[in-house]
Amino acid sequence: MTTPRPASTEILRIAVAGLGTVGAGAVKLLAANRAVIEARAGRPLAIVAVSARTEGRDRGLDLAGSRFVGDPAALADEHAVDVVVEALGGAEGPALALAEATLGAGKGFVTANKALIAHHGLALAERAEAANAPLAFEAAVAGGVPVVKALREGAAANAIYRVIGILNGTSNHILSAMEASGADFADALTEAQSAGIAEADPAFDIDGVDAAHKLAILAAIAFGARIDFAGVAASGIREVRAADIAQARALGFVIRLVGVADTEGGALLQRVRPCLVPLGHPLAHVTGATNAVVAEGNFAGRLLFQGEGAGAGPTASAIVADLIDIARGRCARPFGVPPAALAAMVRADPGDRRGRDYIRFTVADRPGVLAEITAAMRDAGVSIESLIQRGRAAEDGGEVLVAMVTHEGPERCVTQALALLAGSPNLTAAPLVLPLLEG
Amino acid sequence: MTTPRPASTEILRIAVAGLGTVGAGAVKLLAANRAVIEARAGRPLAIVAVSARTEGRDRGLDLAGSRFVGDPAALADEHAVDVVVEALGGAEGPALALAEATLGAGKGFVTANKALIAHHGLALAERAEAANAPLAFEAAVAGGVPVVKALREGAAANAIYRVIGILNGTSNHILSAMEASGADFADALTEAQSAGIAEADPAFDIDGVDAAHKLAILAAIAFGARIDFAGVAASGIREVRAADIAQARALGFVIRLVGVADTEGGALLQRVRPCLVPLGHPLAHVTGATNAVVAEGNFAGRLLFQGEGAGAGPTASAIVADLIDIARGRCARPFGVPPAALAAMVRADPGDRRGRDYIRFTVADRPGVLAEITAAMRDAGVSIESLIQRGRAAEDGGEVLVAMVTHEGPERCVTQALALLAGSPNLTAAPLVLPLLEG
Repeated sequence: MTTPRPASTEILRIAVAGLGTVGAGAVKLLAANRAVIEARAGRPLAIVAVSARTEGRDRGLDLAGSRFVGDPAALADEHAVDVVVEALGGAEGPALALAEATLGAGKGFVTANKALIAHHGLALAERAEAANAPLAFEAAVAGGVPVVKALREGAAANAIYRVIGILNGTSNHILSAMEASGADFADALTEAQSAGIAEADPAFDIDGVDAAHKLAILAAIAFGARIDFAGVAASGIREVRAADIAQARALGFVIRLVGVADTEGGALLQRVRPCLVPLGHPLAHVTGATNAVVAEGNFAGRLLFQGEGAGAGPTASAIVADLIDIARGRCARPFGVPPAALAAMVRADPGDRRGRDYIRFTVADRPGVLAEITAAMRDAGVSIESLIQRGRAAEDGGEVLVAMVTHEGPERCVTQALALLAGSPNLTAAPLVLPLLEG
Repeated sequence: MTTPRPASTEILRIAVAGLGTVGAGAVKLLAANRAVIEARAGRPLAIVAVSARTEGRDRGLDLAGSRFVGDPAALADEHAVDVVVEALGGAEGPALALAEATLGAGKGFVTANKALIAHHGLALAERAEAANAPLAFEAAVAGGVPVVKALREGAAANAIYRVIGILNGTSNHILSAMEASGADFADALTEAQSAGIAEADPAFDIDGVDAAHKLAILAAIAFGARIDFAGVAASGIREVRAADIAQARALGFVIRLVGVADTEGGALLQRVRPCLVPLGHPLAHVTGATNAVVAEGNFAGRLLFQGEGAGAGPTASAIVADLIDIARGRCARPFGVPPAALAAMVRADPGDRRGRDYIRFTVADRPGVLAEITAAMRDAGVSIESLIQRGRAAEDGGEVLVAMVTHEGPERCVTQALALLAGSPNLTAAPLVLPLLEG
C-alpha cells in the first residue's frame, strides 16, 4: 500500500512569476498562514525567487529570502526551484513560454490562468506527463472554490453527464444588481466599474469569454474529454434588459449567465448564455460576484460548489492548496486521467437539443406585428406556451416589447422562426433568446 | 518531485464488509462505472471478498469473483486484500473490531460510518499512522458531497474559523415539509416515515445525534483539532411547531437544524440546534433531504458544498472516491495533519457567546403572564427587540403563544431569564429557544 508519507524537513522551493494581485496574494497567504500550511503540507514551503516588471516597488510583501529575477522565463531554469507559480496572465506570450519551460525542466507548474489552460491545457498536460512534473490549476476555475479537485477526485467515481455553472462573478454581480434595483444594463455596468468589480474594458467578462474558459476546463475534467475551448458557444449579457428581468421574475425565474456542458447522446455541447433559472434551482440564489458549479453524476446526484470566484484571497487559497498537494506528493493528473486517455468528443449540433425558450422582441407599434411573429413561429413549428405584449413604457425606452415562452421543442425550430423574421421592418432590434434552464 | 505515477496493472483488491444499502451500493457502483473508475484510478479495482449475515440472499449483485467470508473480522486477515470497505454500521462492536484489525494489519480501511469515526476517529487515525495504512471516510459526512476532501485538501491553505452545516437530511426534509404544507411536526414525521425518509425509530436523526457525529468530524478536519464528539451539544427538532415556522417566516427567516462549530477566542464550540436562518443565507435555500456545509476560511472566504446527504448512490460515490485515491496512492492524512499534531482544544463556554435568539413561550391565557415574562427578561439583562403574542388559535392547539426576538447579548442572560421563569404556573410547556444564525 502506498500511504501518507512522514513529515519531511525538505523545503518545497517556490518561484513566483508576477507580483500583481494574484502573485502578491499567494505570497501574502504563504506568510500569513505559514503554520497551518506547513502542518498540512508536512514540510516547509519557501518562496526562493520572484519575478516582476519592477523590482523595487513596495508591494507590502516580505521577499527577503527570495532572489529577484528580471525575466520570468528564467525562473524555469533556476536550479534551486521545485515549482513555479505563474501569475503573469495571458493565454500566450510569457505565461505560455514559462509553462512550457518549467514543465520541460521537470518542475511543477501552478497557475490561476484560465485562458492559458483553456487554450493550451491539453498540450501542457502532455508535457507534464512526459516530464513527470505536476501541473495544477485549481485557481483557474471559480477562485477559492476547490471545484477542480472536487470534480476530478471527489466525484471521480461518477460518470458526470452535465456541468452547469455561474462562472463569471462580474456578470453575476451586474445581473444581480439589475434584479435588485431595476437598473438597466448600462447603468449596472457603470456602477460595477466604479465599484472595481468590472474592468474598464469589460468585454472578457460580460461577453462570456471568461466563463467559457472555465467551462471548457470543467468539461474536460468532468467528462474525461480533450479540452475544446473553441467548441464553446458563448454569448454575454449586454442585450439583457431590465424588462427581461422583470418579465422573467413574473414567470418565476431569474436571469443568470450560465455555462452548460453536457454529453447527451455522446456528443459534447458547451455553451455560455444568459438563461432563465427557475427559483427552485440552486443557481437561482447565487447573487453578487459569486461563482457556483453544479455537477450531475450518475451516483452522487446533483452536487453544488459555491464561493467567491475571484479576488486576491480566494485565488491565493486555490494556488496554495495546489502547492500543498505538490508538497505532499499528492498529485492527480491535471484532467483526472492521462492526456492520451482523454476522449476527443464530437461536438453536438445544438439544433437537435430540445428545450424551452424565452424570446423577447422589440417591435414597431403598428398593426400586424403580432400576426407576423406568431405566423413565423407557426411556420417554423415553434409552439408558444405564453405570450406577453407590453405597451410602450418609459422604462422600455418607449419601445414595445413582445415576450413569449415556447413549449419544449428542438432549438433548430426557434432558429428557423427567427430567420423567417430577419429583416422584418416590424422588428426594431434583434430578438433576444434566453433558454430556460430545466431541472 | 513526486509526481503522478504511471498506470499500473496491479489490481487494488477490495473486501466489502456488509451488503446492506451501503455495501451493496458500493458493489453496484464499482460494476456500473468500471471503465471511468479504472481510468481515474490508473489500475483495476476488484472486489475479492465480501461478508454479510446471509450468504445466499439475492441482492442483485454480481459477486462471482469474490470469496464469501462469514465473519467480517476475518476480512482483515485475508492475505490477498489491500483495502476493506466497512459497511456494517455501529460505533462499536464488529465495525470497530474490523477497523482496528484492518489498520493493524497495515491495510486500507474505508468507511461511511460516522458514528465509528466520531467516537474512535482519533484512535483509528493513530493506528493508521502507526501502520502506515490509509484510513478514509469521505462517505461519513454529507453523503456524495466531497466535503471531507474539500476542507482537508481544497481549503488546506486557510485557517478555517467556522463550519456551519445542514447535516441531517431527514430533519431537513421534515422542516421543509412543515414549511411547505404548514403541517405540525408529528404529521410531517409520520409522512416522512411513510415515504421511507425517516426511520421507524427516528431519534438519531431528529434529535441531532447524526448531525453531531458529522459536525465533530468536520470540526476536527477544519480546525486541525482532536475530534471531540462528546463536546457537541445537540438538540433536535421535536419541539419546533408549525407556529414557530410561520412566525420565523414573518420575520424573514426559515428554521433549519444547523450544526455550528467555531473557534472564537481559541476555544472550540460545537452545537447542533434548530436555528433561524435569514433568507439571504445560502443555507436558507437548502430544502428536502439535502446536506450542505459552509466553511469560512481566512483567504477563501465563505465556501458552500451541497448535495444529497444519504442514500445508496451518493454514499457509494464517496466510498469509491476514497478507493480511487487509495489506488492512486493519493492519500491524505485522515484529518489533514498527523494525529499527534491535532490540537486538544478547550471547550468554549456557550454562556459567553453573544447572539440573538427567538424565544417562544406557551402560556396560560390569564392576566399578568406577559408582565412575568418581560420582568424575568429585564432582571436577567435580556433586551427584547420584538414581541408577538398570538391569540388562542386552533392551529396552536388552543394554546397562547408568546414569541420574542432578543437583541444581541450573552447567551447566559437568556439562560438566566428562563431559570427565573422555571416552574411558573403561567408557562404551560418549556420555552423553545432558537438562535438566529447571523452572517
